[in-house]
Formats: sequence, C-alpha cells, structure tokens
Amino acid sequence: MEKLAEDYFDKSINAREHAIFETGIKLATLFQMALGHPIKNMQSTLVRVADGIKASIECQPFVKSVDFIIKKPNTTGSQKFDKENEFDYTFVTGQDIRAQIEIQYEKWIMIGCIEWISDLDYPLMYIKEINQIEKRYEPSDEKMD
Amino acid sequence: MEKLAEDYFDKSINAREHAIFETGIKLATLFQMALGHPIKNMQSTLVRVADGIKASIECQPFVKSVDFIIKKPNTTGSQKFDKENEFDYTFVTGQDIRAQIEIQYEKWIMIGCIEWISDLDYPLMYIKEINQIEKRYEPSDEKMD
Amino acid sequence: MEKLAEDYFDKSINAREHAIFETGIKLATLFQMALGHPIKNMQSTLVRVADGIKASIECQPFVKSVDFIIKKPNTTGSQKFDKENEFDYTFVTGQDIRAQIEIQYEKWIMIGCIEWISDLDYPLMYIKEINQIEKRYEPSDEKMD
Amino acid sequence: MEKLAEDYFDKSINAREHAIFETGIKLATLFQMALGHPIKNMQSTLVRVADGIKASIECQPFVKSVDFIIKKPNTTGSQKFDKENEFDYTFVTGQDIRAQIEIQYEKWIMIGCIEWISDLDYPLMYIKEINQIEKRYEPSDEKMD
Repeated sequence: MEKLAEDYFDKSINAREHAIFETGIKLATLFQMALGHPIKNMQSTLVRVADGIKASIECQPFVKSVDFIIKKPNTTGSQKFDKENEFDYTFVTGQDIRAQIEIQYEKWIMIGCIEWISDLDYPLMYIKEINQIEKRYEPSDEKMD
Repeated sequence: MEKLAEDYFDKSINAREHAIFETGIKLATLFQMALGHPIKNMQSTLVRVADGIKASIECQPFVKSVDFIIKKPNTTGSQKFDKENEFDYTFVTGQDIRAQIEIQYEKWIMIGCIEWISDLDYPLMYIKEINQIEKRYEPSDEKMD
Repeated sequence: MEKLAEDYFDKSINAREHAIFETGIKLATLFQMALGHPIKNMQSTLVRVADGIKASIECQPFVKSVDFIIKKPNTTGSQKFDKENEFDYTFVTGQDIRAQIEIQYEKWIMIGCIEWISDLDYPLMYIKEINQIEKRYEPSDEKMD
Repeated sequence: MEKLAEDYFDKSINAREHAIFETGIKLATLFQMALGHPIKNMQSTLVRVADGIKASIECQPFVKSVDFIIKKPNTTGSQKFDKENEFDYTFVTGQDIRAQIEIQYEKWIMIGCIEWISDLDYPLMYIKEINQIEKRYEPSDEKMD
C-alpha cells in the first residue's frame, strides 16, 4: 500500500522529504481537531480531552508517538473557567495547544511540534529534530521538555 | 448568570422547554465534534476518543452526565481498519455514534440520544425521556441499554 | 420519515417543543463548525467563510433560513490579522460569531440566535422569538438587527 | 516574522523541505475542516461549502492558491441526499474531497493534492509537483484536471 501511494508523488521527492510532509499533515490534523473543544480549568478534563485526540492521531500513517498537552486557558473577563456557574468554561484555542509528534517514514524520524510563540503571537508548527536510523526503531521515552 | 441569560429568551419559554433547547445543543455539539476523528478498529482507541469528547461535553451548561460509544466502524472495500498497513484506518461517521446525554434545567431532566436509525438511514437526535424532579437531583447510574 | 422519527421521542413532547429542540441542534452545529476556521480581517473572506457554513446548515432538517456573520476579530498582541506577514491571521472564536436561524416544525417557527454577550463573557445561544402560523409559511426577509 | 519562525526548525532543513512541510499542513487543515459538513446533492450547495473552506485556507501562510471540489456524495440506502424529505442529506466524507493547493516558500512551489484513491480505499494526500522559480512567482491559472 505504501509503495502504491508513492506513485502519486513527484518523482523527485525522497524519503526524508516524505517524512517531513507526513509530519506537517499530523500536526495540522491534531491542531484542527483540538480547536474549539469545550474545556474547563480542571487538570483531569484537560488530560482526558488531550488523550482522546492523541488516540485519534495515533491511528494515522507513520505516527510513532504523540505527546499532547492542553494548557490551562488564560482567564479573561469575569470568568475563571472553573465552572463556578454553568457558563464558566471556555474553548481550546491555539494558545492552549502544546504538542510533539514523532513520525517515521522509512529510516527517517521527525520530531514535529506545535507551540504558542509569544514573539510571533502565533501557534507555530515546526520540525524540531530530524534523525536517521540504521536499524529497527524503538519509540523514544523522552517527553516534551 | 443563568438568570441573566434568561433575559435573552422569548418570554413565553418555560423551564421544560429551556431544558429541551439545551439538550439539542449538547447532542449537536457532541455529534459535530466526533465526526471526522481518525479511528481504528481497536476497542481501547474507540474508548479513548469517545472519553475525550465526553470530558469536553461535560464542561457545557446543564450537563449532568454523558454516555458515548463509538461503535466499531463497518469495513468497506479492501480495508479492515485495524492498521494492517499504514492506511488501514478510517474516520468517525454518523453510523458509528451512539450517545446519551442527561440535561438538568431547574427541575427538568432530559435524556437526549443520538443513534443511527437504519429505517431512516440517518443519525437521529431525539429526546428519549422527560422527567421532573421535586428535590435535589442525583445523576443516574443507568447506562445506555 | 418525519413521522417515523417522532416515534423515538418521549410521547409527552409536542410540536412547539420539538421545534425548540431542533433550534438547539442547528445553533450548536453552526457554532461548532465555525470555531477554528482560519480567517483574516478582510470582509470578503469573512463573508465567504460564513456563507459556506450557511450553505451547510441550510441542508439540515426544518431549517427555513440562516443568517450568519463572522465579525472582524479583535486584534491582540502585535498582529492585526490582515496578512501583513504570513502569520498575520487568526481563527474564529465565540466572540466573532453572530447567527440567527429560523426553524419551522409543523406550525411553529423559532428564531434562534448565537451572540457574544459581554456581561456573560459567553457566546450565548437563545430562542429570540416563538411564533405560530396558521397557513403556509413564507420565510422572512428580515435580517438580524 | 518568517525568519523568526525558522529559528525553531532543525538547522538541517532547507527551503524545499520547508515548502513540503507547509504543504502537508495545508492539505490536512483543509481535509479536517471539510469532514462532517452537512451537504446535499445540489451543485450550488457543494460549491458554496467548498468556497468557504477555500477562503479560510487562503488565509494560511505560504498559500498561493486553493482549488477544492466537494463531489456529489455516493447515495447509499434509501436516500438520494436531495432533500426529498427533511432527513435526506448527508455529511462530507473523505470520498467526496478533491483538492489541490499551491504553496510557495522562498523559490519553491509545491502542488499538493487530496484525492480519494480507490485502489487504496483512502483519501490520499500527496505532492504532485515540485517546482523552483528564479523570479517573482505568478499564481498559475491551471485548474485541477
């Protein structure tokens, strides 16, 4: 199947580039899925919402591991988002999303990230690390720092 | 806050009707959030994805409890959606969603459901039960049958 | 089909209540779909994004008309969201959504709204008007005020 | 801003690879946004829904042009999705999505596509063409074939 899919790509693309392409896909899928989820300022809720999206992203092609944290949202206006009243909750925005996804395509391993960058006022997706392996790959135990 | 919100409603609406309105909102939110999640045919994945959305819906106003099952998707074509190869997974559709949400507004309790109805070829949202309580309400332990 | 669907509802529900239920569903669907759309501060973009979601909501049961405006997002931080640079855009949030949906179920007409309420710091969904008709209904030409 | 963002990337990544990464992001964003939109079998509806998403994707970084068609959905069961009755509509799935996005990062132009591939039973995202320009780039008038 993977070989069949390769036929659709520009012939000049190589395995490293294909791994980079797949990393972009997964980061964007995670981000777009997470946006707009109702959340409150309770750690267990944030962990459960993030874990549901992790489980979903783990189904996608070439995904080795997914780390995903929804940060406690910044409180604004009169609400603390801790359900003091029925309307006291909020929705996931780009500022709350912190993710790290490990992609393997052939012998190339990418560490892709999403992180709110204050200097850019923007939820940047980027490739933090590119690694090449020679032998069977064991997913890393390293977590986001 | 809840009283403040009531000012925006047509004056003829009563508490029972308000409870019905809120039930429609929650069912549609759950449904729209669930659609399109990548999934595979592994029970633990389906449970984690469903639990993330449950945790999110539980943040919304007047929600007492949420039951939500993503059913194993129907296999079609050449794939079984069990990740035999990298592309062998699928996406949540209306056929896979089975949910039951308990809403309380004042003394009115609604049991709202989403269920794929084969006779309609349609993921129907409906109000299964309307109940009225006189005293403080304890969420039911009953699960979907 | 509509009669078949009714069998699933609690027998005590009446047509007015059913109309209210459907109004909740449509408002929540529109809201959940709109959240997270990339947008910039250009009127033509905001109109096109809103129109796509309107076209989608118009497909749903019992919808007579949909009015939907995505307001120019509040600028924050260093960005104006007018694409002065590549990252200078934002995403639809609850503060930007203003919608009015007309639902007809049997002889009942509901005007349902979504509006950011500053006093609540919340994107409130509410039923603005409940009307009853005796004869064939002509969709109103009235727009949101 | 673009230079600031580059600092977050692995130092070994080059402009061509960066263009490939951005292409993956945009294709996945479009796909994830489109999934689950209510639609019916009317060309004007499908065009409006697609145009709303196009307008949104056009806001994202490095996007030169977006072509996006929602195909008439396959009818299944008893429904034709032409609103013969209130429930006779459906939701966008991967089978209905056909998109082509042109990305420019520095002098690299990518043509990225989403297309349902029957042999894979899968909505494949791929890079169809990689081009390099020497001078100011004019967006192509070519449409999807």
